Amino acid sequence: MLPFSVTILGSSSALPTLSRFPTSQVVNLNQKLFLIDCGEGTQIQLRKFGVKAGKINHIFISHLHGDHIFGLPGLISSMALGGKKGELHIYSHSELKMMMDPLLKFMNEMEDFKVIYHPLNFRTQTLIYEDSKLTIESLPLKHRIPCCGFIFREKQHELRLRGDLIEYLNIPVKQRVAIKGGADYYKPDSTKIPNADLTYPADPVRSYAFCTDTLPLKQIIPVIKDVDLLYHEATFCDDLKDLALKTYHSTARQAALQAAEAGVKRLIIGHFSSRYKNEKPLVDEARTVFANTFAANDGDRFDV
Amino acid sequence: MLPFSVTILGSSSALPTLSRFPTSQVVNLNQKLFLIDCGEGTQIQLRKFGVKAGKINHIFISHLHGDHIFGLPGLISSMALGGKKGELHIYSHSELKMMMDPLLKFMNEMEDFKVIYHPLNFRTQTLIYEDSKLTIESLPLKHRIPCCGFIFREKQHELRLRGDLIEYLNIPVKQRVAIKGGADYYKPDSTKIPNADLTYPADPVRSYAFCTDTLPLKQIIPVIKDVDLLYHEATFCDDLKDLALKTYHSTARQAALQAAEAGVKRLIIGHFSSRYKNEKPLVDEARTVFANTFAANDGDRFDV
Repeated sequence: MLPFSVTILGSSSALPTLSRFPTSQVVNLNQKLFLIDCGEGTQIQLRKFGVKAGKINHIFISHLHGDHIFGLPGLISSMALGGKKGELHIYSHSELKMMMDPLLKFMNEMEDFKVIYHPLNFRTQTLIYEDSKLTIESLPLKHRIPCCGFIFREKQHELRLRGDLIEYLNIPVKQRVAIKGGADYYKPDSTKIPNADLTYPADPVRSYAFCTDTLPLKQIIPVIKDVDLLYHEATFCDDLKDLALKTYHSTARQAALQAAEAGVKRLIIGHFSSRYKNEKPLVDEARTVFANTFAANDGDRFDV
Repeated sequence: MLPFSVTILGSSSALPTLSRFPTSQVVNLNQKLFLIDCGEGTQIQLRKFGVKAGKINHIFISHLHGDHIFGLPGLISSMALGGKKGELHIYSHSELKMMMDPLLKFMNEMEDFKVIYHPLNFRTQTLIYEDSKLTIESLPLKHRIPCCGFIFREKQHELRLRGDLIEYLNIPVKQRVAIKGGADYYKPDSTKIPNADLTYPADPVRSYAFCTDTLPLKQIIPVIKDVDLLYHEATFCDDLKDLALKTYHSTARQAALQAAEAGVKRLIIGHFSSRYKNEKPLVDEARTVFANTFAANDGDRFDV
């Protein structure tokens, strides 16, 4: 299976702490990098955790609160100074461009490097990115300002060839491609060999859902159903659920209930309020509802 | 003497490194804090080095390149979230407000907290701040875009009373104040006691000059003459002086020549290019010209 992982670059909520930077993470599918959110210091975290900023060509911004975007001007400037060429695609609320342009006007190094802004749809789930291996959809959440989550889904893999048999039958390369797509094989004497004899099942497709900042939303359950890995914000413990409601955030218990109801395989919680000295009370609370919960800590890598 | 110090929060040039954040420092005169420049991550460095961000009411911005300002939106947001009240004064190029306003529009917490922008004069040395203990002047430098240095000067201190004699003569409080200002004392029988008998000399006044980003400028020598502590940028070693000239920066040797010619007591060099793995070649080069040179490292505190 191709490497498919999420590295946490920042796991605090609005106020960073000594051990947590504001929200950012990088999704790596087979060395193709996708950045989600970009809180202040993201470029420093990328360097610290050995991720090459220049290899990032796609950035997904959930919403325009500062703790999710204030690292963008520095990251873009440093990409330009580092000699990045080509296009950087940013998927966000359409106002982001108006916020960034005045900050980047003094950058002289951006001649060969273009930032392209793609407006998100905050009303309905939308396919926003697709390549040969992956789709990425945006998913409207419920926060104080327009906010989207993002769902990364691997595309259906090809069937895996039974190498020994393929060799023995001396099947030409062109037919091998067809067999990986599900075709049967006909020998020169027209004998049919069914596809099932020639292949192993395809690798399972994996999926990752990123949901922050948001109230716990019933309507996203069918969308995130059965994902392999769910990141859901858990700003507070449940004793502060009134504050969570007022500020349009979730508690650890609410995040875990979402994970349980959607039947996801694993849950990461993050976006912790700086009032918590460590993640233990939040993880403990979530695990009473959904055992397979892990806390996001800066630098953690989770395989999807 | 009152505590008067400079804490380095960031010492890199445009690209931060694993050990150096972009430019920022905090000047502390008797627990009154003045921030100079605010590169990305300044709020994180303040926390790391135990400086209370909420106590900062005055910020001085040398110029509008990203590595000197991209920490401002995060710092201001966190001040507001932390409940800061009253006024925050920012001294900078007048365009800064237009760059910051779009970023702070989603901050709901700024009702009791107002940011006041003061435009700098980039043509001539200007007094920009004054209180009972201190003056701060801006000093035009020479960079690719308008840039100012800043000079902090203690005001003349009062004379120090000879406590034992003052007690012995039972001098009333009101006269003591006059004596600290230089007055003689007349006993009830009209005998004059000259001021010199009643006082020790005042503490010397101290001064700090911050000069970055800039070419080495002859015309600032008379202004920074004899300062106790000079921070001067030294982006490159002297073998790259052509690159320094082209990018309007200084070399370590040039910074040291400035310090020597101005007769300052101590020199701090900083704003190091990320090409240098450590500060040794820069400090070594500077010390061949000006022995009393020190490298700025994040977290260093220098007493003025």
